[in-house]
Amino acid sequence: MKCSIPKGTRDFLPLEMARRNYIFDTIRNVFRTYCFAPIETPALENLSTLMGKYGEEGDKLLFKVLNSGNFMEGVDFQNDYHKVAPQICERGLRYDLTVPFARFVVQHRNDIIFPFKRCQIQPVWRADRPQKGRYREFYQCDADVIGSDSLLHELELVQMIDEVFQGFGIETVLKINNRKILAGIATLIGMPEKLTDITVAIDKLDKIGLDNVKAELLERGLSAEAIAKLQPVFDLSGSTSDKLQSLEKLFAGDETGLKGVEEMRTLFGYIDTVSPKCQVELDLTLARGLNYYTGAIFEVKAKNVSIGSICGGGRYDNLTGIFGMPDVSGVGISFGADRIYDVLTELNKFPENLEHLSTVLFINFGEKELLQCIAYASVLRKNGIAAEIYPEAAKMKKQMSYADAKKIPFVAFVGENEIINNSLTIKNMATGEQKTVSAEKMTEEFTTVKS
Amino acid sequence: MKCSIPKGTRDFLPLEMARRNYIFDTIRNVFRTYCFAPIETPALENLSTLMGKYGEEGDKLLFKVLNSGNFMEGVDFQNDYHKVAPQICERGLRYDLTVPFARFVVQHRNDIIFPFKRCQIQPVWRADRPQKGRYREFYQCDADVIGSDSLLHELELVQMIDEVFQGFGIETVLKINNRKILAGIATLIGMPEKLTDITVAIDKLDKIGLDNVKAELLERGLSAEAIAKLQPVFDLSGSTSDKLQSLEKLFAGDETGLKGVEEMRTLFGYIDTVSPKCQVELDLTLARGLNYYTGAIFEVKAKNVSIGSICGGGRYDNLTGIFGMPDVSGVGISFGADRIYDVLTELNKFPENLEHLSTVLFINFGEKELLQCIAYASVLRKNGIAAEIYPEAAKMKKQMSYADAKKIPFVAFVGENEIINNSLTIKNMATGEQKTVSAEKMTEEFTTVKS
Repeated sequence: MKCSIPKGTRDFLPLEMARRNYIFDTIRNVFRTYCFAPIETPALENLSTLMGKYGEEGDKLLFKVLNSGNFMEGVDFQNDYHKVAPQICERGLRYDLTVPFARFVVQHRNDIIFPFKRCQIQPVWRADRPQKGRYREFYQCDADVIGSDSLLHELELVQMIDEVFQGFGIETVLKINNRKILAGIATLIGMPEKLTDITVAIDKLDKIGLDNVKAELLERGLSAEAIAKLQPVFDLSGSTSDKLQSLEKLFAGDETGLKGVEEMRTLFGYIDTVSPKCQVELDLTLARGLNYYTGAIFEVKAKNVSIGSICGGGRYDNLTGIFGMPDVSGVGISFGADRIYDVLTELNKFPENLEHLSTVLFINFGEKELLQCIAYASVLRKNGIAAEIYPEAAKMKKQMSYADAKKIPFVAFVGENEIINNSLTIKNMATGEQKTVSAEKMTEEFTTVKS
Repeated sequence: MKCSIPKGTRDFLPLEMARRNYIFDTIRNVFRTYCFAPIETPALENLSTLMGKYGEEGDKLLFKVLNSGNFMEGVDFQNDYHKVAPQICERGLRYDLTVPFARFVVQHRNDIIFPFKRCQIQPVWRADRPQKGRYREFYQCDADVIGSDSLLHELELVQMIDEVFQGFGIETVLKINNRKILAGIATLIGMPEKLTDITVAIDKLDKIGLDNVKAELLERGLSAEAIAKLQPVFDLSGSTSDKLQSLEKLFAGDETGLKGVEEMRTLFGYIDTVSPKCQVELDLTLARGLNYYTGAIFEVKAKNVSIGSICGGGRYDNLTGIFGMPDVSGVGISFGADRIYDVLTELNKFPENLEHLSTVLFINFGEKELLQCIAYASVLRKNGIAAEIYPEAAKMKKQMSYADAKKIPFVAFVGENEIINNSLTIKNMATGEQKTVSAEKMTEEFTTVKS
């Protein structure tokens, strides 16, 4: 029988797990200190919760779960498969953490305290075509605050982004923009109804350049005149406050645009007081595709690595509206664990000690010595040290190869002499250095040295 | 739109999450110190990997995932639904962690080091009828060693069980038996081919009593004579070594039975040297249903709580055989997180501090004070303390109610005086006590007090 797993899914081996857990733990700890409470939602959601939330394309990418029992009863299989699928599948796998979170907030509105700060680190599933760096099952790491429109939350998300990437030792650029400013720009050129087209085109500036963006805007039905009116926006220069001041003038009389400028002025004012380590920029060409954003939008890129954004998010004013709870404002960010993994690999920034899943291996000399090893290992383990005993009295060479292959930093020998003296001999596998220590000192020995 | 989740699935709110994570972290830490390396496998497996591994009943309980695209092409829907399902579903959700682990070991045999000690904490899915304490999506916490038949592993699993439940403060009984002893008993009464019937009946001794077990054995085709021969086994008494000695005599000449006695003698000898805190018993009536066990079997029950087993496992000699890699011995245990949760709830043993998701709330007096709060909170967070700031300058009563509702143990006030003196005033919400401390001392203040 051939052993394989579905296309686009992955097994994680111990070293990959250690590295992934390092990523999750770093993010989780920052979420914790900012008081974002962890929640979990089921992998299985009712399809009615998921369908129609991700556009037509998204509906196709939902994994649908076959009803149990006789799923065929009363179903007309002469119909098109699009019509049959929802009849034989009541449930599906979650596609992201955002829609389940909206559903969660509405369903538990009486059991949670607003403003509600939640984080969620769980896998999601998409029936996308698998390709390099794109999987059908992958983790998302989200943090959102819902039920408050205070800009303090935008600041805290910026601080969290900064601390997470500082923790990883990754240099980043955090770009911020505001959907209200983009709306102001659309109004400015006399085409507020073209906001989406404008943002989609502007979003590509980085990739395709200004001339191509203009060509695309023409294609999308903007007049040459309107496009010409955009020029002052592209020409904005100077400091963040210079740019905001220029925009303020351009937007004179447009309430939404001015609100956007005001929000950015407040947020950047806050950001100045905390002196983030990452480079924070107001980027008027940042648009982010998702339609539900209504205020600040964020995007993080790693410096010196050509990979897409590794974190993003923004403010949305009506996420829970789809589930019948309107006018609840929220703001959130999502870290891309898989891309962060790739960045850390490329920059060689994973801590080396992640390779050491065991701190010490006790060599097995036979039944008599084994009992002493069991006693020693028990003490170490109770003190939090990862200790293992080779399970058989195999040849020394075999036992040492095992330690080598597993990159175990220390090997302990407990022979006749050591038993008599209530001691053990420890070999540092990196340096080859060997020393005998008393049993009372062994815990100290393994906690003070770097493993 | 009505908000709900599929029957048998659950959302976990922050307090439940804190309690569940306490359970997982406790187990995970013990796994770590015994050098069981974490792995993960995908939720989605090929149905061909899963089908036929859990018996006919199990196949029915597998959640099957509909193929994407036109799943209907070339499928004859005149067939019975059992035949149609595997044609329109190539993938399914994992049903346990054991079969995926066996698949993993075979698939990655060249990338892992044997003996391979792995742990895995992930959800599984079963289309079971939901009922109290039984879910369609739930977590399993497994630890297995594969590629070694050393009884040292049985000992380590016993130690791990002991440490986990000590960590929880739950008093437990750990029952141990050996399938080879059960086989010896079947041989003893002249019906080795009836081993499964005998174990299934004996397994019920606790629940239905000896007379009913005997009645069931009769029904299952054992002669009255054979059943009478079982009597000495039920009559065994005295210490573990007394029982093993009696069995040794009964089994004279039966290699398998004697091997079982020998294994138990060695294992209990090891266990004696480590003085476990939990009550460890040789229980000859422990059978455990799963057919793949071939050596030691384990089962843990909580004292003073009437709930089923909260941990179980055993040795299997041919788990990877189904995937074409025969003769690899393994032994493992699985903790039941949901039942442990119920036991901890019933015994009121969850640590109280799990309720405190935030350590301190800064009261928001307005823009000017806010900037100072942001600076203070940043320092605390960088020192690992969970700090939040109320997002608006709302009425004091509202802000204090928020702290109360979230059970935040400390509230911090930063007003005009505090800003001048570079200090903050801290209120202990449990005692009502209030004091002003300098900014330099605040981290200390929150780390030395119990939150």
